[in-house]
Amino acid sequence: MECQDYALSRHVERDNLNLNPLQRGGVLPPESRKALYEFSDGYSVCDYCAGRLDQITKPSIQGFLEDLASFINVDHVRTVHGAREGKFAVMHAICRPGDTILVDGNAHYTTHLAIERCGLNMVEVPSSGDPEYSIEPVNYLKIIDDLCDQGEDLSMVLLTHVDGDYGNLTDARAIGKIAHDAGIPFLLNCAYSMGRMPLDARKLNADFVVGSGHKSMAASGPIGVLGVKEEWADLVLKKSNQHLLKEVEMLGCTSRGAPVATLMASLPYVIERVNKWDVEIEKTRYFVSEMEKINGVKQLGKRPKEHDLVRFETPIFHSIADKHSRRGFFLYEELKKRNIVGIKRGQTQWFKCSTYGFKQEQIHYIISSFAEIIAEFREMAD
Amino acid sequence: MECQDYALSRHVERDNLNLNPLQRGGVLPPESRKALYEFSDGYSVCDYCAGRLDQITKPSIQGFLEDLASFINVDHVRTVHGAREGKFAVMHAICRPGDTILVDGNAHYTTHLAIERCGLNMVEVPSSGDPEYSIEPVNYLKIIDDLCDQGEDLSMVLLTHVDGDYGNLTDARAIGKIAHDAGIPFLLNCAYSMGRMPLDARKLNADFVVGSGHKSMAASGPIGVLGVKEEWADLVLKKSNQHLLKEVEMLGCTSRGAPVATLMASLPYVIERVNKWDVEIEKTRYFVSEMEKINGVKQLGKRPKEHDLVRFETPIFHSIADKHSRRGFFLYEELKKRNIVGIKRGQTQWFKCSTYGFKQEQIHYIISSFAEIIAEFREMAD
Repeated sequence: MECQDYALSRHVERDNLNLNPLQRGGVLPPESRKALYEFSDGYSVCDYCAGRLDQITKPSIQGFLEDLASFINVDHVRTVHGAREGKFAVMHAICRPGDTILVDGNAHYTTHLAIERCGLNMVEVPSSGDPEYSIEPVNYLKIIDDLCDQGEDLSMVLLTHVDGDYGNLTDARAIGKIAHDAGIPFLLNCAYSMGRMPLDARKLNADFVVGSGHKSMAASGPIGVLGVKEEWADLVLKKSNQHLLKEVEMLGCTSRGAPVATLMASLPYVIERVNKWDVEIEKTRYFVSEMEKINGVKQLGKRPKEHDLVRFETPIFHSIADKHSRRGFFLYEELKKRNIVGIKRGQTQWFKCSTYGFKQEQIHYIISSFAEIIAEFREMAD
Repeated sequence: MECQDYALSRHVERDNLNLNPLQRGGVLPPESRKALYEFSDGYSVCDYCAGRLDQITKPSIQGFLEDLASFINVDHVRTVHGAREGKFAVMHAICRPGDTILVDGNAHYTTHLAIERCGLNMVEVPSSGDPEYSIEPVNYLKIIDDLCDQGEDLSMVLLTHVDGDYGNLTDARAIGKIAHDAGIPFLLNCAYSMGRMPLDARKLNADFVVGSGHKSMAASGPIGVLGVKEEWADLVLKKSNQHLLKEVEMLGCTSRGAPVATLMASLPYVIERVNKWDVEIEKTRYFVSEMEKINGVKQLGKRPKEHDLVRFETPIFHSIADKHSRRGFFLYEELKKRNIVGIKRGQTQWFKCSTYGFKQEQIHYIISSFAEIIAEFREMAD
């Protein structure tokens, strides 16, 4: 049979300035591209396996996991296929179908999917709504109290540390304490924080943390991180009755191939970049302040920014789109002309973006590109 | 913090002749190494996602899945993280905790793990035992009848198409028919067949097939294939109630990164190699016949070989190990001197190996290397 042409190139997205927040934290440093080359083939990391992926010493997955556990301050750590698979594993190990779980109103859709796959009931802690969409610990407390008064048991409390819609950093430590005071285990979704910013799971009172290698740890997807506190290890990392070495929720082994090699190679680089988080925040705040100088561009979410993911409301671009011959595509096309990508085609009313990892000059260039586009088309706006 | 040295190189295993059956089917062709380069970064295949990984058109994951579905002759196909994750997804969607599943006595440990993770009861169809270890359809029939007589319901019948211990190819078509006649869905684990040998899921009466990209489809791990017959698609590929596009058992999306790019790039190559399966079988049979000329080397499993995975019983090497100063390590070390790797260090009583994908001259070289080692040390054997 003859295969179709799958167009397996990505030079546009690699060679241009990509503003997509989903892509900014997953760019590989050169040492990880080298690791990818070494471990390209199939089950490449499994040559010297004696039964457990996390105990392989050549390459030293074992040593890497020790370092990773120190880095995020957890007792036990495993690689999983992504944050979502980590959340599912925790819920599947800890909760029973029909149990109730409390989650923030800004939770990622994969949190909902993991809950649905486990057959759990979900109660939401709403955000403050427009324009900040913030998640307040006091509302966790209130809902836990209310549920308790109604005689409803909670099996788990989940929080999205930094959400993917507004890039709001939430007070995990306070919410973790509220969960613990109520005797409920606390799962923290760090897909947008682990690997971008300093993270101390113990300090944040997290019983479980999940992170995303491809989203925020400079690794090839799919790979994630699952951190577990000692008291829950027996449940989450329970061993098989039949195959005594193998962990049931991991289905034996998880990252059996190239992505774990890139996550390993990237760890020193990730540790270094996390230490420069304050510089990233400065750059983001500068970017926001310059973008907001455009009349008709406004940052949504908490202010000032504490994370690189920024959501802008952009009625000015939407007005231009109304009259532009290319309609909603004009913004994407004008940016692309200027070697800037990552904002969805057709989107003008609002967009999410990030300048994470860009140099100051690149950020200047991006800001001046937006200003140039506005200058060119402002008269089309109402 | 300072990271340990993870020794991220694999030149020994890449540059030498690697006999490990786990590694032979996962070697990437050059076009897939190129795809890996293009799609190295994080969520690389997700630039143009409109909500569903399997519907992405740039790169054309959608077109690829159409081709893949034709290639293995299934109605629906998805990529998963590996065969084990595919088995778990099917069992989780179809069975309820406490249900009973019937599996072959040669099943991979990950089948057991998936069963345990789903909370199912397992009944085994034993193999014929030493020396052939074959799985006979008549025994499936007998056990299904017995269970039926005892009023025990079966939720699923599972078969390992080619097992990883003996490389026995089993009569899936007959066992699939037996399952269907009893009204039970049939899951076929093709981790060692899909991508190595011709496979027609419909012809084999499979309701579900799983394959392994890293084991047998020339892809970077972790990636697998899940094929589903139309009548089960509503259950296995059930959509979320809350996120209408997203499939619950897939947790939304699965292979969000580099491995799927390699699987796509490899498909034309895999299609071509599958068509030369008869040549591989000839090479394997020749290899076995030559190896068995060594007194004290005997192939286990069904004869003649119908798959490249070969298990040898090798009492001769075990006897030598008894007297050799390097004990059990001698075989590994003698082979490595000759640029042959992939047989576990210390193993001499028996070993598994494969010459899949090697040229005839390389097979000659491997055979003569074993003969040379025997000639050198035979006097140490009893």
